[in-house]
Amino acid sequence: MKKTLKELAAWVQGSVIGDEEVEIHGVAPIEDAKEGELTFIANPKYLSKLAETRASAVIVSPEVTSSPKPLLRVKSPYLAFAKVLTLFSQKPYRAGGVDPKASISATAQLGKDLTVFPFVTIGDGCRIGDRVTLYPGVCVGDHSSIGDDSVLHPNVSVYAGMVIGQRVILHSGVVVGSDGFGYAKEGKKNLKIPQVGKVIIEDDVEIGANTSIDRGALGNTVIRRGVKIDNLVQIAHNVVIGEDSIIVAQVGISGSTKIGSNVTLAGQVGLAGHIQIGDNVQVGAQSGVGQDLPPSQAYSGSPAIPHREWLRMAMSLPKVPEMRRVLTDIGKRLAKIEEALSSKKEET
Amino acid sequence: MKKTLKELAAWVQGSVIGDEEVEIHGVAPIEDAKEGELTFIANPKYLSKLAETRASAVIVSPEVTSSPKPLLRVKSPYLAFAKVLTLFSQKPYRAGGVDPKASISATAQLGKDLTVFPFVTIGDGCRIGDRVTLYPGVCVGDHSSIGDDSVLHPNVSVYAGMVIGQRVILHSGVVVGSDGFGYAKEGKKNLKIPQVGKVIIEDDVEIGANTSIDRGALGNTVIRRGVKIDNLVQIAHNVVIGEDSIIVAQVGISGSTKIGSNVTLAGQVGLAGHIQIGDNVQVGAQSGVGQDLPPSQAYSGSPAIPHREWLRMAMSLPKVPEMRRVLTDIGKRLAKIEEALSSKKEET
Amino acid sequence: MKKTLKELAAWVQGSVIGDEEVEIHGVAPIEDAKEGELTFIANPKYLSKLAETRASAVIVSPEVTSSPKPLLRVKSPYLAFAKVLTLFSQKPYRAGGVDPKASISATAQLGKDLTVFPFVTIGDGCRIGDRVTLYPGVCVGDHSSIGDDSVLHPNVSVYAGMVIGQRVILHSGVVVGSDGFGYAKEGKKNLKIPQVGKVIIEDDVEIGANTSIDRGALGNTVIRRGVKIDNLVQIAHNVVIGEDSIIVAQVGISGSTKIGSNVTLAGQVGLAGHIQIGDNVQVGAQSGVGQDLPPSQAYSGSPAIPHREWLRMAMSLPKVPEMRRVLTDIGKRLAKIEEALSSKKEET
Repeated sequence: MKKTLKELAAWVQGSVIGDEEVEIHGVAPIEDAKEGELTFIANPKYLSKLAETRASAVIVSPEVTSSPKPLLRVKSPYLAFAKVLTLFSQKPYRAGGVDPKASISATAQLGKDLTVFPFVTIGDGCRIGDRVTLYPGVCVGDHSSIGDDSVLHPNVSVYAGMVIGQRVILHSGVVVGSDGFGYAKEGKKNLKIPQVGKVIIEDDVEIGANTSIDRGALGNTVIRRGVKIDNLVQIAHNVVIGEDSIIVAQVGISGSTKIGSNVTLAGQVGLAGHIQIGDNVQVGAQSGVGQDLPPSQAYSGSPAIPHREWLRMAMSLPKVPEMRRVLTDIGKRLAKIEEALSSKKEET
Repeated sequence: MKKTLKELAAWVQGSVIGDEEVEIHGVAPIEDAKEGELTFIANPKYLSKLAETRASAVIVSPEVTSSPKPLLRVKSPYLAFAKVLTLFSQKPYRAGGVDPKASISATAQLGKDLTVFPFVTIGDGCRIGDRVTLYPGVCVGDHSSIGDDSVLHPNVSVYAGMVIGQRVILHSGVVVGSDGFGYAKEGKKNLKIPQVGKVIIEDDVEIGANTSIDRGALGNTVIRRGVKIDNLVQIAHNVVIGEDSIIVAQVGISGSTKIGSNVTLAGQVGLAGHIQIGDNVQVGAQSGVGQDLPPSQAYSGSPAIPHREWLRMAMSLPKVPEMRRVLTDIGKRLAKIEEALSSKKEET
Repeated sequence: MKKTLKELAAWVQGSVIGDEEVEIHGVAPIEDAKEGELTFIANPKYLSKLAETRASAVIVSPEVTSSPKPLLRVKSPYLAFAKVLTLFSQKPYRAGGVDPKASISATAQLGKDLTVFPFVTIGDGCRIGDRVTLYPGVCVGDHSSIGDDSVLHPNVSVYAGMVIGQRVILHSGVVVGSDGFGYAKEGKKNLKIPQVGKVIIEDDVEIGANTSIDRGALGNTVIRRGVKIDNLVQIAHNVVIGEDSIIVAQVGISGSTKIGSNVTLAGQVGLAGHIQIGDNVQVGAQSGVGQDLPPSQAYSGSPAIPHREWLRMAMSLPKVPEMRRVLTDIGKRLAKIEEALSSKKEET
């Protein structure tokens, strides 16, 4: 596929400076781009690379007004790059049909134009939407439903009774609906509390490889529209994650915690159970959150505190050994002074 | 199924205040409960909700003596709730038989009344107990054994030669018996040390989704009776976990570490190798433990220290930047005083 | 299999003290070893155990010159132990053939002497080398290649277009090639950035259970020769890991970060994106690294600092509550002195 820079500008709602008829057939990072490819500069500090790149044109922000190369100016170069890349890389969906080596219950309702690979299992009473792709080894438990255009990569496990929306992407090894971790002590023994709730995954959610989402104990675990979850994340029973939130790899969210919309939890963050995280909150990597966090602020540390406070603290802590020495020294000087003063007093 | 409150009281060894003939057909949290349902109050601070709930009866602790609703009084309301929920939610086991799409070695010994789904593999010389359920994609390696009434959820992998007890539950994506992480340096290269031990999982163990348990190097990795392990936990070679211990999500336990019985490791805890954790120890979330921990105490932090000490420390650390400023200020005041005193001395 | 101590000494390039004709048929840890078995002492502090062991011979370092047992002296006892264990435990490869219950594309190119278990899927255009073992539930996506003598354990998922070298071992649940976590904000919504790069895994790499390796966004994610990765590790898009590096369990490496050769990242370490870790760097468990690390040093802490500094800091931090008290006390004493001095001044 080839597009002129003019056509691409229309696609991303940008404007061209320079030759707008230059033909583009692909996208690449600025160091790797070759003739015929489009690249982008999201950060103005890399503008010096404009001179070196072999790309045929460059996506830039509006403050850039001249360059040896044709420019495609847009408000958000990164977003425009994503859109052009999508245009060049996305193949139209072609239904692969249902492989005879799949195992599909006679009571499952299948949509149109499916792609079902070998060794897929679809249980009793399942409802599978149109144009759904189920890769090898996917297991969909009884009475679960999957919305139109969703893709479940190899070896995804969906327990019985789960609800998955449209355009959802589940990467390999994702588990949806495992039992929550709930026990009541009976003496020293742990009595299992039955986990009878669902996982509800709304539309346009993407979930990374080997992430685990437990079903609700009573009530449900809910992942709202547009949430993006990275690899190896733990989501416990009855958690609710608000719309468009971003959960980075290896985060752990304990039971019944409610996360607002548009929240970002950076990598390896841990959240205690039964807390509330406000909308638009950002939590720094490896933080540990034990209490409610008010909306629209950034937090870091374990236990988490406001991010700016944490920055100051983190810079100060390596000075503590030196502070101890200073403190000991001050103690001695003070004792000396006190002694001097008291002996003077005695003199008088 | 319906039960009178009187029947349920007998089941959980409690006593009724109010109408003991009220009929109950389900269990729900206090906010969601509807007529005909039983709810519970574990924490006395929620007693005010007694007036609002639409539940037909409420499980409470013995100190509650009156309410607008029939009461079921028990020593541990949470435990009683778990038992009643189990009563209402647990379906009796019905054998599903062995699906012809499973692949079962002719030399495997199969118990009675199995449920074996499509795409299950059972290797040579395996012994599978009675009433075992193997969901789609489960692989049981050669010469492994699984005890009666165990359940392996979809896509569980059991390597060759492993030993799994009775009533064990392995959630989707669990790996039992992967090689431990052992290498010997030969110059810069890492020479693999063969891992030839087993994993032994005793009775009544439950293991969460995508948790990995490595086989012993020499000797075995052992998970003792009644241990409950959450999702995405890492258990290295030759670890031993004592009876009834609780290992929360994303914990990592390094090689050859021995954990006592009735221990709780909270989420994202990391344990170094070759250490011993005493019985009844509790380790707070995200802690890092590098040394033996004596029994029956609580620890937190990384490196872990006694929990109370950690609490004081965690509250103090954000004050360190201010302490530095105070220290600088004190230094200046002290210098001034010292100067004043020495000039006085000179005067005299 | 039996070998004389003399034969084993030749195998590991060591020398014997004592009876060199003693016959050895196995290897065991010093406490468990029985007659006919060889054991080893890597750490001189365990030399006292030499008297107690029932092993028939002991591998030791050259400084040990006498013992009640025959000795096999070598420069690195642990390495020699690994080599002898390999000799005794490794079975020669025997091809199991391709199971008819596997699903193999007609356009895949298969090497010689394969072992392909039931429910394996090999996609269009794949190239599978000689003596490759694919366990049940392994899925190899279209146009991926796997080099000679590699082993993929049960339920490994390899996406389309990936490149895996020779003698690579992938443990159960490993995911190779899931989409990187890349989105561009379009208002509040997250627009997916297509992930079109590969994962390239070079020769002699071993990857632990349930580890996830994302494909490159543009460009590739590369795991170089001899790298060893433990369980439940997260490797984001466009990461490069240098030769012979060791990545311990539950480490998370963010996008585009480059790791040198012979690096060790201990358990649960987190690395930010777009940073560089020098050759031979060692990072302590649970550390968080946000910036480039120069080569050949050890770092610890979150944020990471040089390891020795961190040790001092970690010992000092629990003293901060006491330091605060001392500081308050000093403030009071100082105020008293200042008052005394100023009143004296007034006197004079």
